[in-house]
Amino acid sequence: MTLRLSPIRVLRTSIPRTRGLATTADLSNESKGPTGVVLLNMGGPSTIPEVYDFLYRLFADGDLIPLGRYQEKLARFIAWRRTPKIEHHYEEIGGGSPIRKWSEYQATEMCKRLDKLSPETAPHKGYVAFRYAKPLTADTLAQMQQDGIKRAIAFTQYPQYSCSTTGSSLNELWKVTKRLDPDSEIKWSVIDRWPTHSGLVKTFAQLITDKLKEYDESVRDRVILLFSAHSLPMSVVNRGDPYPAEVAATVYSVMSELKFTNPYRLVWQSQVGPSAWLGAQTSDTIKSLVKKGQTNIILVPIAFTSDHIETLHELDLEIIKETKVEGIKRAESLNGHPMFLDALADAVHNHLTGAAVASNQYAMQCPMCTKEVCTDSRNFFLTQ
Amino acid sequence: MTLRLSPIRVLRTSIPRTRGLATTADLSNESKGPTGVVLLNMGGPSTIPEVYDFLYRLFADGDLIPLGRYQEKLARFIAWRRTPKIEHHYEEIGGGSPIRKWSEYQATEMCKRLDKLSPETAPHKGYVAFRYAKPLTADTLAQMQQDGIKRAIAFTQYPQYSCSTTGSSLNELWKVTKRLDPDSEIKWSVIDRWPTHSGLVKTFAQLITDKLKEYDESVRDRVILLFSAHSLPMSVVNRGDPYPAEVAATVYSVMSELKFTNPYRLVWQSQVGPSAWLGAQTSDTIKSLVKKGQTNIILVPIAFTSDHIETLHELDLEIIKETKVEGIKRAESLNGHPMFLDALADAVHNHLTGAAVASNQYAMQCPMCTKEVCTDSRNFFLTQ
Repeated sequence: MTLRLSPIRVLRTSIPRTRGLATTADLSNESKGPTGVVLLNMGGPSTIPEVYDFLYRLFADGDLIPLGRYQEKLARFIAWRRTPKIEHHYEEIGGGSPIRKWSEYQATEMCKRLDKLSPETAPHKGYVAFRYAKPLTADTLAQMQQDGIKRAIAFTQYPQYSCSTTGSSLNELWKVTKRLDPDSEIKWSVIDRWPTHSGLVKTFAQLITDKLKEYDESVRDRVILLFSAHSLPMSVVNRGDPYPAEVAATVYSVMSELKFTNPYRLVWQSQVGPSAWLGAQTSDTIKSLVKKGQTNIILVPIAFTSDHIETLHELDLEIIKETKVEGIKRAESLNGHPMFLDALADAVHNHLTGAAVASNQYAMQCPMCTKEVCTDSRNFFLTQ
Repeated sequence: MTLRLSPIRVLRTSIPRTRGLATTADLSNESKGPTGVVLLNMGGPSTIPEVYDFLYRLFADGDLIPLGRYQEKLARFIAWRRTPKIEHHYEEIGGGSPIRKWSEYQATEMCKRLDKLSPETAPHKGYVAFRYAKPLTADTLAQMQQDGIKRAIAFTQYPQYSCSTTGSSLNELWKVTKRLDPDSEIKWSVIDRWPTHSGLVKTFAQLITDKLKEYDESVRDRVILLFSAHSLPMSVVNRGDPYPAEVAATVYSVMSELKFTNPYRLVWQSQVGPSAWLGAQTSDTIKSLVKKGQTNIILVPIAFTSDHIETLHELDLEIIKETKVEGIKRAESLNGHPMFLDALADAVHNHLTGAAVASNQYAMQCPMCTKEVCTDSRNFFLTQ
């Protein structure tokens, strides 16, 4: 099987000319736009035949899973081995990942809002760049060039920064830029993390409150909230990756928004392979709580903005359905919640009105990281 | 060597009768006081001859270091083995730990402020109960009984909750109460965590700002802030201990207060023994950063309220002095900072005006914990 990168459909934000918003119309000549806003994420196979390519790219990513000099060969082998099982998982959640659908919808809706919030940078054109699935970064960049974009924002859809996720996406964007836009005609800035953005936090809190209402009032305030995030290998944690602390910051902010009404824990899911990963593990935690008779639990996916295999299969089918305990539920993912769409637009608007090309944290490489690509891509984005 | 528990000096908050504070004086007849406020902490040997007893109690604590059925014998052996080295460490920091001095000062000053803030619960009498050094919990409780205290607050001086620290102190307080106060004549409530208390956060931020001023303006905003907390064994982390996430919450709040002016990381110190502990390690981090030429660094002790061996010896002597790099400094500990003394009083005042006997989080045992003492002590405090 080879990697065939078919042309992708890139979002075109249609800005209604008759929307009656004087600001946009009147200022159109003074606008510094168009502004491209690129949602970065890992992506997922939208259809079953895309599973192998997705897995191959995932295991070929040395920023995510360092496999040494045989990375590519090993990636092909591992992807080939895992494809049938993972295809089956995607079949069980409806034949593919909804992440592209949600990302494109989020980008479109975000840009509609941005055109109103920030007419001086309108029109805003939304794009999606996935790391392991279509639309891939290279194709999105090519489309942006075709659209004449000169000013763009790379907006990570991992609210908490990890070198394995946002770091990998930015490294890829830098590599692709070197190849396709060697003269840097597109000027970039980066929203590299937004773990406690107030709109993000309020949406999480709202989705939890909605779910809590499904419990009888007599038990509601004793329901345990289990915030579940994708785990990291301890080798990455011990290198100084900022992700665990930033996920904890999101959790604490959400609990603060909820006025700490309920007991809660931050737990970690999706460990694979024999090496040590950060715990407590989500699945172990559920098992132990159920054993103790604590069976009213809401799982809250806290480190991803859309539904994907880890929510729809791992949490919903492998944990909740398997456990067969009525009181174990999952809070909805952010997906297309209007509060979340407002939050996306607000985060970009704040970024546009600020002076920084990235956060101060982005400037600091992980203390124990010695990868050149991490230094080079930082230098690229920080000197835009 | 045997454990000789000599009578301890317990704080008596002297409330000046002539202070001219109308509220306290006028309301004294209506006061629900006296109110005992007990600062819980691990403690440290105030003098060199106390080192062995301190180490013995530390290694005998199964909540901190579970050594199985031979815990006591092993504790005696390990303490005996380590005493000479640790005595030397305490000699190097001036002949003993300052933690008792600071704790007693904090308790006294906190109570002075509380008498003004909350005349309806005055007089407030400050006590200190250490887990491994004098004044020990049992002696403090005996003194409180002698003082006629009927209402008391157990106020942990670990702002972030861990089963190894606050959990152990509360388990000890419960055990001692069963023995000395079997009819529960003292009614307890608990401040079991306060990781983002605004006064605490503002004091940390102030101490960092003070230290940043020692750097030339041209480099000041590139100084790396390394928040350093005592690490935990991964076995404790993986059991679902809430400490790592709560420490991260403190760090994020402090950075938020500082408006994220500087890059930062949360790192972990004081690992011992061969098992896996949570990283990144403070000492490794410093070494790696220095190797990369990043030599302007402020270490910030973020999980302890007073100076102790881990700041004065481990950070100041083993790391900073050994590294011999001028740009590596440490932010002062909270100790007797007036903002911190206000924060202590404010935290208790908030607790007194609230209705809760403890936080909602305290009600939830670690998911993978099966220790009876943790259930029993919780039941005791939560049904007061």
